[in-house]
Amino acid sequence: MAVYTQVPELDLARFVEGHGLGAMRSCKGIAEGVENTNYLLETTTGRFILTLYEKRVEVKDLPFYLGLMEHLAGKGIACPLPVRDRNGEQVGELAGRPAAVCTFLDGLSVRAPAARHCMLVGQALARMHLAGLDYGRGRANALGPDGWRPLYARFAARADSVQRGLGGLIETELFTLLPAWPRDLPQGVIHADLFPDNVFFLEGRLSGIIDFYFACNDMLAYDIAICLNAWCFGPDKRYDRAKGQALLEGYAGVRPLLTAEKLALPTLARGAALRFLLTRAHDLLETPSDAIVKPHDPNDYVERLLRHRELATPAAYGLEG
Amino acid sequence: MAVYTQVPELDLARFVEGHGLGAMRSCKGIAEGVENTNYLLETTTGRFILTLYEKRVEVKDLPFYLGLMEHLAGKGIACPLPVRDRNGEQVGELAGRPAAVCTFLDGLSVRAPAARHCMLVGQALARMHLAGLDYGRGRANALGPDGWRPLYARFAARADSVQRGLGGLIETELFTLLPAWPRDLPQGVIHADLFPDNVFFLEGRLSGIIDFYFACNDMLAYDIAICLNAWCFGPDKRYDRAKGQALLEGYAGVRPLLTAEKLALPTLARGAALRFLLTRAHDLLETPSDAIVKPHDPNDYVERLLRHRELATPAAYGLEG
Repeated sequence: MAVYTQVPELDLARFVEGHGLGAMRSCKGIAEGVENTNYLLETTTGRFILTLYEKRVEVKDLPFYLGLMEHLAGKGIACPLPVRDRNGEQVGELAGRPAAVCTFLDGLSVRAPAARHCMLVGQALARMHLAGLDYGRGRANALGPDGWRPLYARFAARADSVQRGLGGLIETELFTLLPAWPRDLPQGVIHADLFPDNVFFLEGRLSGIIDFYFACNDMLAYDIAICLNAWCFGPDKRYDRAKGQALLEGYAGVRPLLTAEKLALPTLARGAALRFLLTRAHDLLETPSDAIVKPHDPNDYVERLLRHRELATPAAYGLEG
Repeated sequence: MAVYTQVPELDLARFVEGHGLGAMRSCKGIAEGVENTNYLLETTTGRFILTLYEKRVEVKDLPFYLGLMEHLAGKGIACPLPVRDRNGEQVGELAGRPAAVCTFLDGLSVRAPAARHCMLVGQALARMHLAGLDYGRGRANALGPDGWRPLYARFAARADSVQRGLGGLIETELFTLLPAWPRDLPQGVIHADLFPDNVFFLEGRLSGIIDFYFACNDMLAYDIAICLNAWCFGPDKRYDRAKGQALLEGYAGVRPLLTAEKLALPTLARGAALRFLLTRAHDLLETPSDAIVKPHDPNDYVERLLRHRELATPAAYGLEG
């Protein structure tokens, strides 16, 4: 978290009371989520995550995110369920910030996913995509290809200070990917940030998906491409075809991929790497040196981009023809 | 926490298994404690706090701290109980750091204590002092008066960069307090850092005392003096005599104060303020600007020092003659 907001105890007690959560038993600030302040709250009725939205999350988008979680949870997806207050509202105010409280999910995230985790993530992603198809609200992907050039323009002059040659690499990728970007694949609500720290496992099952604060409408296959980047590269920074295959098979077992989606996957995976490279390089340059959470290293995504250039075919990613 | 250590999941599972804690259900890094990395760990057998000791805690002192918690918990003091591993050890290693796991305590700390909290803290402090009298190990107070001049010497040249006149203020206090410092009052194990964030309350009771990593042998009344500084100054930075009286009465109801302790209290309270001023000013100057937790503001203790100069008599603190 770039900011960590302290909550006066009386305000907290009033908030908890207003949500009918019972009496508080403990409340611990947790080091989870980069964007917001999160507390693990235990009351006589259960455990909850209390989130205070810091400035990076747009308040106008909160109904989309929280409504989505409610919609998905209602369809049996293991995601946090926002608790509405006594007036039926999902978003309240606490310590001067928009705040919401959601159910707590048991489980542990894995830092070094195995193929079986990738399989479970593929399945869960497909289930989430299907469950989201009839969600009523929409939100454009601010970090989609139309946003890449403007984002790059904000730090182009300083790109090589992150890593020598980074500016040239990004320009080449923008030049290559933007004209080739698919536009006619099946769309829906995507998570858009399903990294290992946003997925919990328990007793060999996937027990939770959290952090929907990048969710938006976009091509479903692009969400798969993000997951391939997030889950299927080993510590050697090489693509792990067995993990990729597991993720893709897990997904396709729930929602079979169209041929057009399979053919587009290498481009989408390369584009997803560029998207995370752009935000990480930007954040590295923009994050004040006294921020609480260190920005992610952009270099991981430089490496991934280079790997995607070599992979290039659906088969290389583990897709059957 | 100045450092936050990530624990590889397999190492964590092995550590939990080695302590017979059952199967893990969740593990969240928590923003508690400035010195160490803390995780709130939930397993099939209960909730625990897992602590990884970062470099500021001396490894050689861990048996003193953890043994003290075990000793006090065994006497009914509401403090975390270190869980010994299958080999009977309290300290293990995790992610390359010394690590221990303790029972979790329910309750909430108060940011704005009322007189009733001060009364409960006084009672608990006295009970802890009595329970610690037969603790077998010892540890000198590294932040006692003998340590003040050496600590000040480390930043004396830069003191006025913290606040104009700070150097002169500290010199005056050292000159005044060191010769007057009492040396013959009842000794024992003191907590030495019993600030509101180290005390939990639940349903009108005091439910827990945590963070024994400054505990040491010193005058018991000095621990009271620290608490007067930590609990009995209002947001206006003035001494709140009603709170002080509540704390002192709570304490004396369990362990009556000697006349010599009462007479020494103004000096001890002023010395305690100097001790926290010294470490805060030092930490402010030494903490790298990219540290995760911001150092405390030394100015609160400049104000307290000035207040203590005015108070000066036991009666002014709320002690009956």
